Amino acid sequence: MATETRRRQVDRSADTRRRLLAATVECLVEHGWAGTTTTVVAERAGVSRGGQLHHFRTRGELVAAAVEHLGAESVAHLRRLAERVEGGPVAVVELIAEFYASDRFAAALELWVAARTDPALRIAVVPLEAALGRETHRLAVELLGADEAKPGVREAVQITLDLARGLALANQLTDDGKRRRRIARHWAGMLEAVL
Amino acid sequence: MATETRRRQVDRSADTRRRLLAATVECLVEHGWAGTTTTVVAERAGVSRGGQLHHFRTRGELVAAAVEHLGAESVAHLRRLAERVEGGPVAVVELIAEFYASDRFAAALELWVAARTDPALRIAVVPLEAALGRETHRLAVELLGADEAKPGVREAVQITLDLARGLALANQLTDDGKRRRRIARHWAGMLEAVL
Repeated sequence: MATETRRRQVDRSADTRRRLLAATVECLVEHGWAGTTTTVVAERAGVSRGGQLHHFRTRGELVAAAVEHLGAESVAHLRRLAERVEGGPVAVVELIAEFYASDRFAAALELWVAARTDPALRIAVVPLEAALGRETHRLAVELLGADEAKPGVREAVQITLDLARGLALANQLTDDGKRRRRIARHWAGMLEAVL
Repeated sequence: MATETRRRQVDRSADTRRRLLAATVECLVEHGWAGTTTTVVAERAGVSRGGQLHHFRTRGELVAAAVEHLGAESVAHLRRLAERVEGGPVAVVELIAEFYASDRFAAALELWVAARTDPALRIAVVPLEAALGRETHRLAVELLGADEAKPGVREAVQITLDLARGLALANQLTDDGKRRRRIARHWAGMLEAVL
């Protein structure tokens, strides 16, 4: 019985942690970096101040954990999308472009930009950026069935990802979906010829 | 004599305004959006609080003017760079990629990201983004000697600019110059074949 109670406590604690991290990402999307305070996050997650402090003592700790959470969640999301994709480079490039044009990217962009002028945040974000870059590159290679030993293929995969991030940037203030899909399709045709 | 005095006052006033706008852009680069307050800007520009209030009554007014200033200055900067460029697409694509990887882009990115969750700033930034997009596209067409009537050329010019912005993003937290130049050169080769 004591074991059962203990397990329930552990479950509840993990659930609280997850809710705080999810709320942090949601706050970044809705209010931006400046509006993502521990108070706003705790309220949104439905967690008491004490409950929050138990998991994350400072805004820095909370955000560092949310950065990791966001990275892991993004890769998992891309993998799920990828499972449903059928068809050649056009479908894969469109999928990658849509992946970056999501709320997750908006949240990551808030962290990226804030990290540029915030040394503590930067320490958390730089390794994430590198890991996420490697992981999305690997996934893109896999989805495209790209043979990186062939000349120009590695560069073409990198262009796909940098282009997708550039297109996502153009989607931050206005809906750029129509143009994005046109450009993605066009690039996919060029990519197909390289692969 | 009265005319002379009056002219000097006008000159001094225009100079103060220019210094405030330049200081705003510098503050965005160094301290980010949250750190760009009217107090910090006035101090940096060496302008008194009264002098600043004479030109810009609110942070909103100052930033809206700085957005315009940054846009006009960016286009002028790109034109100056372009005057020195010789050689085909490789040189032009490298120039565009380096242009976006500059401090001006970092300042613009601060405004872009802040504008996503700040309705008043958004009103100032959206038309600037559109105008700057059109202007850089026109300039890229001109520099590349691109004939947009040819199939695929318009899209290839757009890919150049979206790719350059994506590459610039990857340069915010770490120096990505080596990879950027390699990717830019590779894309330039593909672009040349299209043109």
